[in-house]
Amino acid sequence: MRALHRQLKDAILSGRIAPGLRLPSTRALAEALGASRNAVVAVYGLLLGDGYIEAAAGSGHHVARLPAARRPVAPRGEPAWLNPAYRGLAGTPDRDAPPVPRWDFRVGVPDKSELAFDAWRRLSARSLRTLARRAVGYGPAQGQPALRTAIARHVSFTRAVACSGEDVLVSAGAQQAFSLLAQVLVTPGRTVVAVEHPGYPPARMAFEAAGARIVPVPVDEEGLVVERLPAEARVILTTPAHQFPLGMVMSAARRRALLAFAQRHGAVIVEDDYDGEFRFDGRALDALQTLDRAASVFFVGTFSKSLFPALRLGYVVAPAWARLPLVAAKERMDWHCNLLSQETLAAFIAEGHLARHVRRMGDRYARRRALLLERLNGELAPWLRPLPGSAGLHLAAQLADRHDAGAVAAQARAAGLGIACVADYGRGVPNALLLGYGAIDESEIGDALDRLAQLLKAQRSG
Amino acid sequence: MRALHRQLKDAILSGRIAPGLRLPSTRALAEALGASRNAVVAVYGLLLGDGYIEAAAGSGHHVARLPAARRPVAPRGEPAWLNPAYRGLAGTPDRDAPPVPRWDFRVGVPDKSELAFDAWRRLSARSLRTLARRAVGYGPAQGQPALRTAIARHVSFTRAVACSGEDVLVSAGAQQAFSLLAQVLVTPGRTVVAVEHPGYPPARMAFEAAGARIVPVPVDEEGLVVERLPAEARVILTTPAHQFPLGMVMSAARRRALLAFAQRHGAVIVEDDYDGEFRFDGRALDALQTLDRAASVFFVGTFSKSLFPALRLGYVVAPAWARLPLVAAKERMDWHCNLLSQETLAAFIAEGHLARHVRRMGDRYARRRALLLERLNGELAPWLRPLPGSAGLHLAAQLADRHDAGAVAAQARAAGLGIACVADYGRGVPNALLLGYGAIDESEIGDALDRLAQLLKAQRSG
Repeated sequence: MRALHRQLKDAILSGRIAPGLRLPSTRALAEALGASRNAVVAVYGLLLGDGYIEAAAGSGHHVARLPAARRPVAPRGEPAWLNPAYRGLAGTPDRDAPPVPRWDFRVGVPDKSELAFDAWRRLSARSLRTLARRAVGYGPAQGQPALRTAIARHVSFTRAVACSGEDVLVSAGAQQAFSLLAQVLVTPGRTVVAVEHPGYPPARMAFEAAGARIVPVPVDEEGLVVERLPAEARVILTTPAHQFPLGMVMSAARRRALLAFAQRHGAVIVEDDYDGEFRFDGRALDALQTLDRAASVFFVGTFSKSLFPALRLGYVVAPAWARLPLVAAKERMDWHCNLLSQETLAAFIAEGHLARHVRRMGDRYARRRALLLERLNGELAPWLRPLPGSAGLHLAAQLADRHDAGAVAAQARAAGLGIACVADYGRGVPNALLLGYGAIDESEIGDALDRLAQLLKAQRSG
Repeated sequence: MRALHRQLKDAILSGRIAPGLRLPSTRALAEALGASRNAVVAVYGLLLGDGYIEAAAGSGHHVARLPAARRPVAPRGEPAWLNPAYRGLAGTPDRDAPPVPRWDFRVGVPDKSELAFDAWRRLSARSLRTLARRAVGYGPAQGQPALRTAIARHVSFTRAVACSGEDVLVSAGAQQAFSLLAQVLVTPGRTVVAVEHPGYPPARMAFEAAGARIVPVPVDEEGLVVERLPAEARVILTTPAHQFPLGMVMSAARRRALLAFAQRHGAVIVEDDYDGEFRFDGRALDALQTLDRAASVFFVGTFSKSLFPALRLGYVVAPAWARLPLVAAKERMDWHCNLLSQETLAAFIAEGHLARHVRRMGDRYARRRALLLERLNGELAPWLRPLPGSAGLHLAAQLADRHDAGAVAAQARAAGLGIACVADYGRGVPNALLLGYGAIDESEIGDALDRLAQLLKAQRSG
């Protein structure tokens, strides 16, 4: 009788049975269909209950006059009042991950082949057993206490960021850290947010989505040009350890000047330390958070580079005055991060696997980087000049003026080399290629750069 | 020498060594400290590099004039320009989960004692192996294709919501679904969002955080009172399957009227189906999404009730016109959900564990509910009258006028009964208690209600 119910309903909804039409009696319909009368009575009952038909004493059942919403209409497009920031988006979302290039120079993709997956699996099973046993419902928005403590210790050690678990908020990757900061710091339509140009578009977009007025500020070989910051900037996004995408380290003088600017103007700084754990020159400048004496720096870190992006865990080390607003924003945004991943990661850090992994991968990335630089400074020197930098998972190389980095990158991609260029991240930027060494094996770099050299030689002769 | 470096830096930062002061020569300091001269040279080099000291030809090293930011200042409070929605938050965030009550009538906490954790562990290990093998970086913002397909099948089957994986966006629980919808649908300061009163505060707060103008609309025994919707409402949040917190089912007439309102005014409806998978009257009214012919309904579901909240996975079934804006909002908010949980859940659904669990738990919740109703309609009838409803994990019971539900709930909590009241969710609401049966075992209900009865009797005589 389910079929009959659905059939009649569809007929009414589509208008094939007109409103007011009297339906056959249950007895007549049952006979016509060879069904039991009880079944038809039941179906009529359902239709009555849902308001598709009406019953009047003595006159049987007739089709109800349906409100407009029930009549079939063409699927509606977006309403005119939609948030302007989300209007008229065209194209198809990326459904599947793009194919992995043959020679993988992608920016920001780490190597996870050496990760202690056995330990992860064991700790993950343990977290699951604990969860199964305990009457746990929801968790704290700020993050699991064990994970916050583990992060505080890790970041104190690797980045000399002085903090305790109280100062840490666990986020779904660095991207959510930016969204949460944008929620708290931006008054829509008012707050001026300065971003590096070129810079990291997703961070900028998180602030745009919150209604920020974005002002791009240039970078030079010392990093963000502080003297070009507009006085009305209230939030400054910066990547001091490894400028994204150009790679330079912000100089000590600029760090001081930036902190002074923030204090003078009552602004805050978002220090995006996306891959600052990997450093290749022995000593590093202090993080802005370490130098800050005015509670004006938010330090954003992520496990997407030090472990793997699929995990979607990151964090903010926040000044005390901003902690509760951030927790409130997290509650409103998605309450808290997956407890199993949080507990697993906390145990993974506590057992020393993260520190070991960062150390081991640091050595490995250093070798890849050294090899890349050797080749760039060797046979590729006529075309490419590596830009300064000493950290992270990628480097930028200035291309000789007679070549266009965008065109070279496109040709390289066609030849299986996963190379990007700075122009992918903005206009009016250096004519430079971006070479990530997070994913490519050391043994592949020689071959890959041979191909790049061939391609550049062919361009010159062409 | 690390110690010396830190000591000198701190002394300079704190002002204990004044700017301009000439430092001892490296030789003199090395002798004074009994250290090697090379070590002192190295420390001076670090301080020079960081800009703490300066060197002039022939005049040795002297302390640099530090910018204001370097001078110690009192930790700063929140800046005056902070987003007003996040200003002046006081109190301490909930660090640890509140204690589980002895008799656990908490609203919205499901029973996970029967969950197939072994299957979950096995599938989770499998997802991890797959991830370890593949060169996966980031994933699609809309969600893993396998999970979207699994969700579409599940929701088609359990809720007759007609959709495919293309229509589904995976979110971090229902809460993020609300945040994403708020991002897309709300123009800050402009868009009027109607919410049920009483209703679910976190959903309202997600829209408030996005700058919505919230208008509460009353509910009666048929659910949301559609005729009380303001004409300017552009988004309507509603819980038709099981009104939160009162529990009634939205009537068929109201469903029709609500869809007609949406079409007439170009509004959209957010159908929050937080626990609609558990139904106790054999048949259910069609979801608004099922009835909608105008592409105006967003159906929000979650696995927090059907599996467990710690998972933080939910979804939106969205009209085609809104899919790309939602994907864009998700990219900006946190890119995508944890891939391991997504793949594990996809396999868990595909292998039938979710459907089995929902069926089994449905029977179990039905027995608890029936027992509760029997006792409420029996010896507790002088005090409590269950409000109508036929789905979900809790019920509301109207308290006799001579008692105050807030006071009774507080007394009950003090006696170990985890009971809430409707007034926890708003003012000017029914004088009713809320009894969740998601977490409490059937065998405990008798005892627990005996205690509640004692408590109410004592109140009458008191």
